[in-house]
Parts: sequence; C-alpha cells; structure tokens
Amino acid sequence: MAPAQRSELLIRLQATRRHTEHLAAPLSPEDQALQSMPDASPTKWHQAHTTWFFETLVLRPWARDYQVFDARFAQLFNSYYESLGARHPRPQRGLLSRPALSEIQAYRAHVDRALVDLVLQADADSWAQARPLLELGLQHEQQHQELILSDILHAFSLNPLAPAYRAPVHPAKVPTSYGATTMQWLTHPGGLVSVGAPADGFSFDNEGPRHAVQVTGFEIASRLVNCGEFAAFIEDGGYLKAGLWLADGWALAQAQGWQQPSYWRKHADGSWRVFGLAGEQALDPQAPVMQLSFYEAAAYAEWAGARLPTEFEWEAAAADLSGLSQLDDQAWQWTHSAYHPYPGFRPWAGAVGEYNGKFMVGQMVLRGGSLATPRGHARPSYRNFFPPHVRWQFSGLRLARDLSDSQGKT
Amino acid sequence: MAPAQRSELLIRLQATRRHTEHLAAPLSPEDQALQSMPDASPTKWHQAHTTWFFETLVLRPWARDYQVFDARFAQLFNSYYESLGARHPRPQRGLLSRPALSEIQAYRAHVDRALVDLVLQADADSWAQARPLLELGLQHEQQHQELILSDILHAFSLNPLAPAYRAPVHPAKVPTSYGATTMQWLTHPGGLVSVGAPADGFSFDNEGPRHAVQVTGFEIASRLVNCGEFAAFIEDGGYLKAGLWLADGWALAQAQGWQQPSYWRKHADGSWRVFGLAGEQALDPQAPVMQLSFYEAAAYAEWAGARLPTEFEWEAAAADLSGLSQLDDQAWQWTHSAYHPYPGFRPWAGAVGEYNGKFMVGQMVLRGGSLATPRGHARPSYRNFFPPHVRWQFSGLRLARDLSDSQGKT
Amino acid sequence: MAPAQRSELLIRLQATRRHTEHLAAPLSPEDQALQSMPDASPTKWHQAHTTWFFETLVLRPWARDYQVFDARFAQLFNSYYESLGARHPRPQRGLLSRPALSEIQAYRAHVDRALVDLVLQADADSWAQARPLLELGLQHEQQHQELILSDILHAFSLNPLAPAYRAPVHPAKVPTSYGATTMQWLTHPGGLVSVGAPADGFSFDNEGPRHAVQVTGFEIASRLVNCGEFAAFIEDGGYLKAGLWLADGWALAQAQGWQQPSYWRKHADGSWRVFGLAGEQALDPQAPVMQLSFYEAAAYAEWAGARLPTEFEWEAAAADLSGLSQLDDQAWQWTHSAYHPYPGFRPWAGAVGEYNGKFMVGQMVLRGGSLATPRGHARPSYRNFFPPHVRWQFSGLRLARDLSDSQGKT
Amino acid sequence: MAPAQRSELLIRLQATRRHTEHLAAPLSPEDQALQSMPDASPTKWHQAHTTWFFETLVLRPWARDYQVFDARFAQLFNSYYESLGARHPRPQRGLLSRPALSEIQAYRAHVDRALVDLVLQADADSWAQARPLLELGLQHEQQHQELILSDILHAFSLNPLAPAYRAPVHPAKVPTSYGATTMQWLTHPGGLVSVGAPADGFSFDNEGPRHAVQVTGFEIASRLVNCGEFAAFIEDGGYLKAGLWLADGWALAQAQGWQQPSYWRKHADGSWRVFGLAGEQALDPQAPVMQLSFYEAAAYAEWAGARLPTEFEWEAAAADLSGLSQLDDQAWQWTHSAYHPYPGFRPWAGAVGEYNGKFMVGQMVLRGGSLATPRGHARPSYRNFFPPHVRWQFSGLRLARDLSDSQGKT
Ligand SMILES: [Fe+3]
Ligand SMILES: [Fe+3]
Ligand SMILES: [Fe+3]
Ligand SMILES: [Fe+3]
Repeated sequence: MAPAQRSELLIRLQATRRHTEHLAAPLSPEDQALQSMPDASPTKWHQAHTTWFFETLVLRPWARDYQVFDARFAQLFNSYYESLGARHPRPQRGLLSRPALSEIQAYRAHVDRALVDLVLQADADSWAQARPLLELGLQHEQQHQELILSDILHAFSLNPLAPAYRAPVHPAKVPTSYGATTMQWLTHPGGLVSVGAPADGFSFDNEGPRHAVQVTGFEIASRLVNCGEFAAFIEDGGYLKAGLWLADGWALAQAQGWQQPSYWRKHADGSWRVFGLAGEQALDPQAPVMQLSFYEAAAYAEWAGARLPTEFEWEAAAADLSGLSQLDDQAWQWTHSAYHPYPGFRPWAGAVGEYNGKFMVGQMVLRGGSLATPRGHARPSYRNFFPPHVRWQFSGLRLARDLSDSQGKT
Repeated sequence: MAPAQRSELLIRLQATRRHTEHLAAPLSPEDQALQSMPDASPTKWHQAHTTWFFETLVLRPWARDYQVFDARFAQLFNSYYESLGARHPRPQRGLLSRPALSEIQAYRAHVDRALVDLVLQADADSWAQARPLLELGLQHEQQHQELILSDILHAFSLNPLAPAYRAPVHPAKVPTSYGATTMQWLTHPGGLVSVGAPADGFSFDNEGPRHAVQVTGFEIASRLVNCGEFAAFIEDGGYLKAGLWLADGWALAQAQGWQQPSYWRKHADGSWRVFGLAGEQALDPQAPVMQLSFYEAAAYAEWAGARLPTEFEWEAAAADLSGLSQLDDQAWQWTHSAYHPYPGFRPWAGAVGEYNGKFMVGQMVLRGGSLATPRGHARPSYRNFFPPHVRWQFSGLRLARDLSDSQGKT
Repeated sequence: MAPAQRSELLIRLQATRRHTEHLAAPLSPEDQALQSMPDASPTKWHQAHTTWFFETLVLRPWARDYQVFDARFAQLFNSYYESLGARHPRPQRGLLSRPALSEIQAYRAHVDRALVDLVLQADADSWAQARPLLELGLQHEQQHQELILSDILHAFSLNPLAPAYRAPVHPAKVPTSYGATTMQWLTHPGGLVSVGAPADGFSFDNEGPRHAVQVTGFEIASRLVNCGEFAAFIEDGGYLKAGLWLADGWALAQAQGWQQPSYWRKHADGSWRVFGLAGEQALDPQAPVMQLSFYEAAAYAEWAGARLPTEFEWEAAAADLSGLSQLDDQAWQWTHSAYHPYPGFRPWAGAVGEYNGKFMVGQMVLRGGSLATPRGHARPSYRNFFPPHVRWQFSGLRLARDLSDSQGKT
Repeated sequence: MAPAQRSELLIRLQATRRHTEHLAAPLSPEDQALQSMPDASPTKWHQAHTTWFFETLVLRPWARDYQVFDARFAQLFNSYYESLGARHPRPQRGLLSRPALSEIQAYRAHVDRALVDLVLQADADSWAQARPLLELGLQHEQQHQELILSDILHAFSLNPLAPAYRAPVHPAKVPTSYGATTMQWLTHPGGLVSVGAPADGFSFDNEGPRHAVQVTGFEIASRLVNCGEFAAFIEDGGYLKAGLWLADGWALAQAQGWQQPSYWRKHADGSWRVFGLAGEQALDPQAPVMQLSFYEAAAYAEWAGARLPTEFEWEAAAADLSGLSQLDDQAWQWTHSAYHPYPGFRPWAGAVGEYNGKFMVGQMVLRGGSLATPRGHARPSYRNFFPPHVRWQFSGLRLARDLSDSQGKT
C-alpha cells in the first residue's frame, strides 16, 4: 500500500472523528449523558464506543506497544460483541455519569494519537491487516453519527421544554427536492437484475455477495411521501381503520394509543406541529414524513392504494431509473423485505463477524439514507435494518405498486 | 356445477367435520376447556370457531332461511376478523366454561344439518358463490385440526401428571423413513424456478401468484434432523455458545433459561425423555426433533456447518429432486424466509381477506407438513408461518448449505 | 374426650364436607375447572385442597394404616406450605384438567371414610392430638367455602354470557335488615378495651392473645354503606377526584381505569346493573355495596366526611354497642388496620404455623362476615385479611368517625 | 412575632439551603442528573423541587410582587401534589438535561433572595401565614437532603466503576457507639404510654395528635444489629430458609434472587465488601447493617429469636429507657407498624394536606434517624415510612422481644 493511500485514509479518518465531536458540540455534558430508552444510547457513550471499537479491533492487535487507556472501558463500551467479553447492560448506559465526558474526550484524543501513529508507522504487513479494520472503524463511527442524532432527538422529545438541537434550516437551504410536489410513478420493467455490492470498494458484509434476482415489473414513486400527504391519511381516519394495518401493527397501535407519528403534536388551534432537530416547528407539508414505524408506513401505503417496495425493487430502481429524488438525503425508506442473508453470505472473520450477521431475523430492511446520514456513507446496495415497530429513526417511505395496479389508472 | 361435484364436496366436508370430533373424542369436557397460554385455544373453542366460520361465511350469506344457532356466538367465536365485529379477548378463551361442550356439540350438529341442506338444495348461482367458501371452510377446519393437537399437547405439557393424549404408536407403525439414518446431501443446480400454487385446484391466497424466482445452486438434506443429532448438539454445549445463535434467539434463550427443546426432560439417570402425544417417552434418536423454535433450528444448523433453506430453495427441491424423505409427514420445516407477499399478491375479497394477508410481517415461513397435519391438506406450495420464538408447534428442520460449502467435503 | 364430643365433631365435620359439595353442585365439571386469575382457584381445586389438608395434617400423622389416595396429590394440592414440600404453581391451577372432577370426588370420599374411622377408632392419645387438627381442617374448609363463591363469581364475571350461579333470592327472603334505610351513628366512649379471642373455644392463632388496647371515643354506623349511597358517590365524581383517594389507590384506579365497583355495569339506559351470584340484576339501592377494594372503601368514607374504623374500634363496638346491624351476614368490612401480630402472638407449632402468621405484612384487616361466610364460622374477634387492591371478595364498609367530628352535627 | 424570631428562622433557613448545595458539591452536573430508578430522583431535581416548594407554597401566596422564575417549572418540579396541577412523570426526571444545573442554581438563588426579602419585609399578617410554611419548607428540604444521599448512592451502586461520593470516615471519627459490641436487652414494663408529638414545636401532621396507647411489657436491644451479626445470618442460610421470612418477602427475594443486602458484594477471596458513600469498603463487623428492606429485617429478627418493635414500643423505649445507643445517628429502624393515621389525625389544610396523609396505606414506619439525616431534624415522635420492599434507604433494625420470651433465658 502506497503512502498516498495511507494519507487518504488518515484524512478521512480525522474528518470522521472530528465530525462526531462536531455533532456533540451543541450538547452539554448533561445532554450527552441522556439515555431515554434501552434502545437509545447517550451521546457520550457513542463517542466512547466508537473509540473503543478502534482501540479493540485496530490498536490492540496491530499497534506496536499500544497502551490501553483504561482497562475498565472494555466492559463499559462494548456494545454487543459476545466474543469480546462481558458488557455493561445496555439499558444502564445512561447511568454512567462516570467516566465524565471530559474523560471520554481524553480517551478519544489518546486513541486518535495512537491511530495516527499506526497509520504513519505500521510496517507493510501490519498495515495490510489493520487497514480494512480502520476503514470499518470509520464506517462504524459514521453509523453512530446518525444514531447520535436520532437518539438525542428522542431524548429531547420527552422533555416538556422541547429543546432544539440546532437552529431551523434557513429557508434558502431547504432541499429543492421538496419543490417536487407532484409525485410521478416511474416504471421498471422487471427481469433478472443484479443486486448487492460489487467486490471492489468498501461495503458491509451484509451487502454481498452480489447476485441475480428475478424482479416482476413494478412502478415506484419519484419522491418520498410528504407530511401533507400523511396528514391527509390521518384526517381520513388512517389510525382508526384496522383494515389498513398489518395485524401486529394494529395491535401495537391500539395498545400504545397511536394517533399520529411519534413526533407529531396537535396544536391547540388544530394544526400539526412536528418535533425535530430544530425543536417543535409548524408542519411543512412538503417535507418528507419521518420517524415512522414500518407498520405506519405500510398502513399509509395500503390507504394510498399502493405498497412498499421490496429491497430489490428499490435497488433495481436506483440502478436503472432516472427521476428518483430524495434517494438518500431525507429519510430511510422502509421496504417490505426482511433483513436476511444473501445467497452465499459469509460474515467477516473474527469478532466483527458479529457486526451484522447475528441480527438477521425479526428486522426489516430500509434503503437509501437520511438527512442524518453522513455524506458519502450510503450506497445503493446499503442495507439499513430495524424492527418494524421502531419510531425514532429518520425513516419514511417511498411508494411502489404492481404494474397491473396501474392499468387504466394513468 | 354438476351434482357429482356437490356430492364429492359433501363427502369431504362430512369427513372433515367428523375428523375434528374424532380428534376431540379422547378429551374430557375439562380437557377441552383448557387454554394454557394466550397463543393456544381450547379444543372446545376450536370446535366452535370452525363451526362459526361456516355459519358466518357460508350459511348466513348463502343458505336460504338459515336460523342462527345463538347470536352471542358471533362474538365468542370470531378469532381475529376485525371486519366481522367485536371479539371475545383471545387470552380469555379458557374462561368460557359456558357454553358447555354439549352446547358446542349441538352447535356443530345444527350447522352441519344446514350445510347439507345448502349443498343439496342451493340453486346454481348460490352454489357458485358458496362453493369456494365451503371449500375454504373445510381447509380452515383442517388447519385447526393440527392446532387442536399442538394446543392440547402444550396444555398437557404443563400438567405434572403428564397426561397422554393417545397411546404410543405401535412399533410396527413407526414411519419407515426413520430407518433412513444416513443423511444425504442432495444437489440442486439453481437457476430460474417457478414457485407458488398453480391457478387450478384449491390453494390459499398467500401461495400465489405463481412466479419465477432466481435461486443459486444449493444442497439440501435428504431427511430431517433427528433427536439423536439434536442431543449431540446439546451435549456439545449448543445452548451455551452465543456464537451459534442469532442475537434475538440468544437473548430469549438466556432470559427464559432454555437448555433443551421445550418438551425434552432430563431423566434422573441422565437420559432424555420427550413429552408428546403419547405422554412422556424415552427419546428415540431416529425420530425427527420437533417443537423447535426458529432460533433453535438456526442455531443447530450453524453448529452443523449448514443453514436453513429459503422457502424457495425448499419448494424447488421438492419439485425437482428425488430422494427427499419426511417431506410433509413428520414436522414442519423452518425456512430462513420471512412470510411476505409474493409479487402481485392480492388478498381474497371480503372478510376472508383477513385470513392470511394481515400477518405478513414478523413471521417466518415453514414448509412441508407434520404428523399432525391432516392427510391431503398440505402441498409443496403451502406456506405455514409462525413467529420465530414459537416452541409448541410440530416444527423441526431440514438442513441446507451453499454449493460452495461442499467443495472438497464430499 | 368423651364419645359425645367425638360424635359432635363428626356431625359437624360431615355437615361441613357435604356443604362444600352442595356449593359445587350447581357447577359443571367445566365450571369447576376455571381459574380466572392467579389469586383465584378452581372449585375443583378447592374441593381437593381442603381434602389434602385433612389427609396431610390429620390422617397421615394420626390415622393408623392410612393409605394415601394418590401420592402425586401432595404437590398438586398443597397451597402454600413451604415446610410440606414442592407445590404446583398457583397460577397454573386452572390447567389441571386431570385429575378429573370425578377423581377429586373419589378422593373426597376416600378421605371422608378415613376421617370417620379415625374419629370412631382413635385411641385417646391419638384423638387428643388429632382433634384440634380436625377442628382446624373443618374451619379451613369453611374458609374455602367462601372462596369457592368469590372465585366462581369472578370467573363468571368475565364470561360475556353472564352466567348465574344461583337463582335470585326470593323477595320474601331478602334480609330484613335492608329495610334499615336510615343509618344511625352509634357512640362508643373509648377507653381501655379487651380485644382478641378468649382462650376457650376455637379461634385462629392470629386472634390472640386477648389483650387490652386503648381506644379513643368514636362513632360508628349502625349499618353498612349501601348501593344507593355508593351510586351517589359515583354520581358526584367520586372516581374522578384525586383528593378523595389514598395515593396508591388513585394510582391504581387511574392505571386500570376504575369508574365503578368491579361488578357494576352501566346499562344502555344509564341505570346500574350489578353482577352477583344470581347473575346480572338491577341495582338494589338498599343492598350493601360489596366487592370493593380497601381503596374504594376509603375514598367513599372520605367523601362521606367519615373514615373507616380500626379493627379494635370495630371489635369494641361489636362487644359494647347494641343497634349494629349487618354485622356478619352481608359483607366483610374493611378496617384501617394492617394485619399485624398481636402482642405475644405465637403461630401454631408445626406446618400449620404457616397458616396465618407469614402473611402479616401488606394486608388490611376486614371484620365481620359476609353472605358467603358459612353460618357459625365468624366471630367478633375474627380477622379476615386481604391486600388493599382486592376487588373480588364480599367486602364492603361500615363508616366510623371521631367523636369530635360529630360535635354540633347531630 | 418578634424580629428575633425572624432572624432565627432566617439563619436556619440559609443554613439549610446552603447545606443542600454542600451535599451536591462533590457531584458533577452529569452525576446530578442521574435517575437510577423511578423511585429515586436526580440531585438536580431535588435541588429544584425543594426550591419549587418554597416558591409555590410560600412566595407565590405571601411574597408581594414575587416574580416566578420560570412558569414551566411548576410542572417540572411538582412531585406529587394533585391539587397543584400537572406533573412531569416521575420516572422521567432523569431525562431533564434541560434546565441545566446552572439554571437550577440560578433558580435557587432567585428564590433565596425572595425568601430573604419576605422574612425581612413581610407585614405581621403575612408573616403569621408564611412562617409555618417557611418552617415546613425548611423541614421538607432537610428530608430531601437525606434522599439526595440515598438516591446518588443507589445510582453509583449501579456503576461498575463504583464511584465514591466522599472519602472514608477517618478511623478516629468512627462513631464510638460502634464500640458497644455487647448488645444488651433493656426492659420496658409496658402500660399506658403517651405517644406522638407535643403541640408545641415543629412536627409533621402525621405525628399527632399525641395520645395514649396501651403497650405490653417488652424488651428492646441497646443498639442496632451490626454487619458482623448480619453476616452470621447469611452464613447460616438466612436467605435460603423460607421459614424465616414473611410470605411476601420470600416471594420477592426468590423472584429477584436476593442472597445478601443490596449493597453487599462478595469479594473473590470470600470476604464481604459493602458499597457506601465512601465507595466499596471491607465490611466493618461493628458498623450497623443498613439498606435493608423490612422483609430482610424481619427475617433476621426471626432468625435471632426476636422480632421488630412496634412504633409505639420504640417511642416508649426512647422516652423511658436509658442505655439506648444509635438512636438516630446510624440507620432508621424498621418497626412492625403500618403507617396509619393516629386517632383524630387531621391533615394540614390546603395543598400541604397531601404531604403525608395520602400515603397512609401499604407502608411501614421507621423510627429514629440515620447518618444521612441532617442533625436536628429527627425527633422521638418522627415517623419515617417506606414500603416494605425498599432496599436503598439508610434503614436497619433494632431487635425487640416479648417479655415472656426472655423468661429463663437471661
Ligand atoms: Fe457500534
Ligand atoms: Fe381460524
Ligand atoms: Fe387453604
Ligand atoms: Fe418533596
């Protein structure tokens, strides 16, 4: 590996590490310690865990004479790697007022220094081993950057003061794609299509092997469902009609009293307000709806006389069609595909084999990317996944329908 | 429709109705009232619900002058049809000591008489409408016949007296396929295969439309995993090694203290005993293992260096390969396919549209059939489905593996 | 002990045993197997458990050559005696379809025969030992007779068919005390009073030792609160005003949505109907309100400008005042006294030491007796006890107030 | 009220307010935001709530022109006063990263200034009204001072780093009463004794009216049960013997796997270590055992052939006997008395009527005081109360026994 490649990686690595800190900057130490539910983690924990990942999987095996920052962190910041030993219980991450945020920041600096040393000084053999894990650590940290935002948003949503993480987006910067108010149906003829990540370039193990799947012809929407459309669904009794819902979704919605998306609030004057990174704002009818569960997305699609795409329809459309907007910059798009292994799937060797593979049951695939996804992180073959009840992610939907459904309708 | 067809259906219908009663015959009224968990139902309830299905969907709309047996039964015996009105809460089915079993038997007789009248007397138009629903009612009752057995088995499994539902199978009648102790790997070359039910003949809506899928070449086991093999998995610490398990399965197994299949019991002398329809019996190493959850099946497959087949691999193998034994007469076979709609899937019109479609999230497909499945009920395109944690069905597994996994191994 | 005493006990014993069967007679085997919640038990179980009590504590130690009916019953029908070995889990009593009711009836007959033999044939020493335990077994069975009624009433209350356990009481037999519509305040001057059971005659260990307590002067109501009065409390928003409730009661009432007593139902025409042993009947305003929790009783008392009596006020009033009606024939009366040991309390020796003593925390005392209490079973010193949230007993209230509260009011 | 009285109160008020801040001083903003369970509250919340109490009950009604600091705090920091409006949900107090600690400190300063103004400037009438509420606010803040310590101790106990709140007590400062290793039985003859707070001086409403109770003669231990004694109980299988426990306690201990007091930890070498305000320390056999539940205290007493005192025995002993050490400076002492109203009890008028009275069911009285109780706060008539399962308070036990139990034993 040529030095140029080392410096390229070093630059991206530093940028990624700094971006995490940039995301945390608006948050006080108190904010960064919040855990609002077992599924979410404190910002401080995300900062530490991503650092632990580099320390454990890159520095300890490959950095000569690396001094572990604090041996107790192995337990505190291991997320779910059974093969790496005991873990602090996930629901108790918010109880870790110690180590203090300042200590986590020192931890980050300590690991950053060692990573720079490793990149600059590793011999060729070590570098060959460490480089893919460094890349993985970087991609991993980018994933947690999105979680920092979804998790703090959830915590703030439970605070009656409705804190804003950041200022509202300046109107001039609102995505122009919002202007595409007219949704178009785009046609894909179907056939044998190739899906999955190509062998070159970084991708997660769950994106491969690339392989052929047979897809029936279908139509797909040019943009995401927006808040104005979703408000019409509510207005029409969408949350009250069992017939629109999958049975599990209906049962959960009844048990928990769902009447709108989790961050929507009815103002005293009857108008909708939406809680987001800029706090509570008037509903923007052209903004994509998000923080939807799979169940809500599927019920909306049923109401709209459509359905959710499969993950392979989505990927084929992204590859073959022009005219798709809001592909990966607004909200992840629920598909009606379970998160299962591709034919010939092999998890990575070693502890990182636990990264993706062991979650391949009970979850649904989301495709695309969101406004919280770091630029450059997503790909058309990217498979995000969450259980169908999850309502705190930047997750929305893009409609699809069978070709036959559109006969005579256009 | 010619009279011959009416009589053919009438004969099958009577046989099916009588078979339900035959299955209930060994059970006392007290036994038939048992509900051992919210997911299971009393035998008496199954007898009433299958009758309610005919009354509600066949007799009320299509039988001239039909007199409803008891108007209150509409609520008591509606299982999950939102469009058919209020329902008695599922977890409280076991509280219905009234109506008495004798009243349910009278209900069955009342409906049976009306069904005979309908078949014999309906005019051509009514018959054309009623016939497919009669067929559906018959198939529906067959599905509940299997549940009668799995549910009473669960209830009896919680009784310290370990009651036997029936006498042990006479040794001379033990399936000869058990003798196939040597498991063979059968090779399917893959390619574009057709799956789903053909248009003619009865099938459930979820089995269609028939369509093409691309399958990668694979190998599949000639028979099911048996109890001897599963005992070796336990012996080797299969329930103790997180690395073999999907994360959700491991979490559940730890939380509930799983150490063996739900109906296996360790005898004082260290040997295994297995609770089944004939009560507690010594483990038969050649009998297929069953009452497994998807999680246990997948962990076993991982331990065995293999995996579960997809539902389309299973269907392609059933169609194209010879040498598969225990296809549908021993235990349903978990696949690593979520229960999702096929391309172009349309639920049936009307209330029966709730029969299958609304469950298409969160469940895994099982293929084949079991010793509790009425003969003639299953088909290669049949899609049984349960959530992955379910441990009280006649569910086992058949191994599969990628073609490449077998290179140099044979 | 003279033969006369043996025959006296034998007659009472037989009468008590037959009364249990008389109470069970209107119930089918299916009814008798019902367990509607973990706190309630099936009629069949009560029949077996009271028999097990005699077998275990009387026959096994004191009856020569007694043959145990079925050794497995020791586990099935032990309620809560830790010192007597393993117990079938309480919430699973309703799963015992086996042993069948007919087997339990045979068990009862077997034990009855042995009890008769014991009474007639025991030598003087054995008799001296056995007699108090026989008496205890008899009293124990009487306690379960009341539970048979409260438990089946709860089970039937959850059946949409609203089954009636018995026919309504003929108007001519409605207790004449109902006619006492005008409630009187009776005054007790207070002072040092003796409470607890005297040493002679049967009483439970928890009723002693008899001892002196200092009581402040108080007033107590001549009769129980009736349904008409309680309806006025509801009408006045009693279930909506936090200020009337103890904090635990309010939290529970909100969490469970209490709006009326557990067996009251609002008819379509706005009138109240009350579910009871005779099924659902129009509310009788003069009938005592019952199936109240302590929380509801206390909230009513607060609303009425009064309070609940302590158990010692109740006992002193029963001893010293005339004019108290409905003392022990309508509904148990919640007191604001926790169920704690008296000074010098000693549990009985042996396994029966677990009978009462170990429950002396977390429960409130009820005094009096109810329409479901066998005649002759209750006494003024009798201490019934239940947790404050319990709503399925024959439990109502009698008001009390401080003497000073009545100054100038009369 | 003379100025001297105003200045006396002002001095105590300032001292109390500063003491709260002194207790919080060792804790970082992150520490102060911790809520480790619904029953515990963050230090920051305690600081705000005690301030809200003064603002709401003293300043708003009685301070001329008082400007509310932040109107939203009324909801955030109301603990349980239904009559004072909506409340932030108790289990979500730990989610309030905003308002920041610095804002709470400003809130405290704002209210402090207004309180000083009020004390110095109120006219006689206002002062007469405000003074008792000021006193109550002061006593209330003292109660929360103890909770600050018990709550942070609980939170720290769940942190694997085992943080210490403060340095260990210097050996020279260890209470000399620890030296009293020989426990003495002190005899109280019983009789009619007066209990409850006298009319003069501050006391809570639940301490009155003072009244007479009849007490049977008893013996009481000269000191608290210490850790060495409790270790012997464990060693003897105290946590394994159902017969020692009340039924509710045994059920809970089994369900939660209790094997020792909640803060005791078994070291690898088999010795006990105890987590406390100074972090994890070797067990000091002479230090009083604390953080016990009522259930554990009662089981220990049973094992020791003794029992817990009633609250009136405790109060009579404190009044009449000499030789009682560790009365109120080590650990609160569980009594076997439920927390119920005294004869003639009247809650305070107004919102503060909710302070104590509505909790008078389901809780047990503790008497004395603890090392975390501010000096001067407790009294012999003081009634602390907690549910019997609570294990995070500074709660231990002092043994008692009936006089008759000691016959022939001494
Ligand atoms: Fe991670
Ligand atoms: Fe059905
Ligand atoms: Fe009993
Ligand atoms: Fe408070």
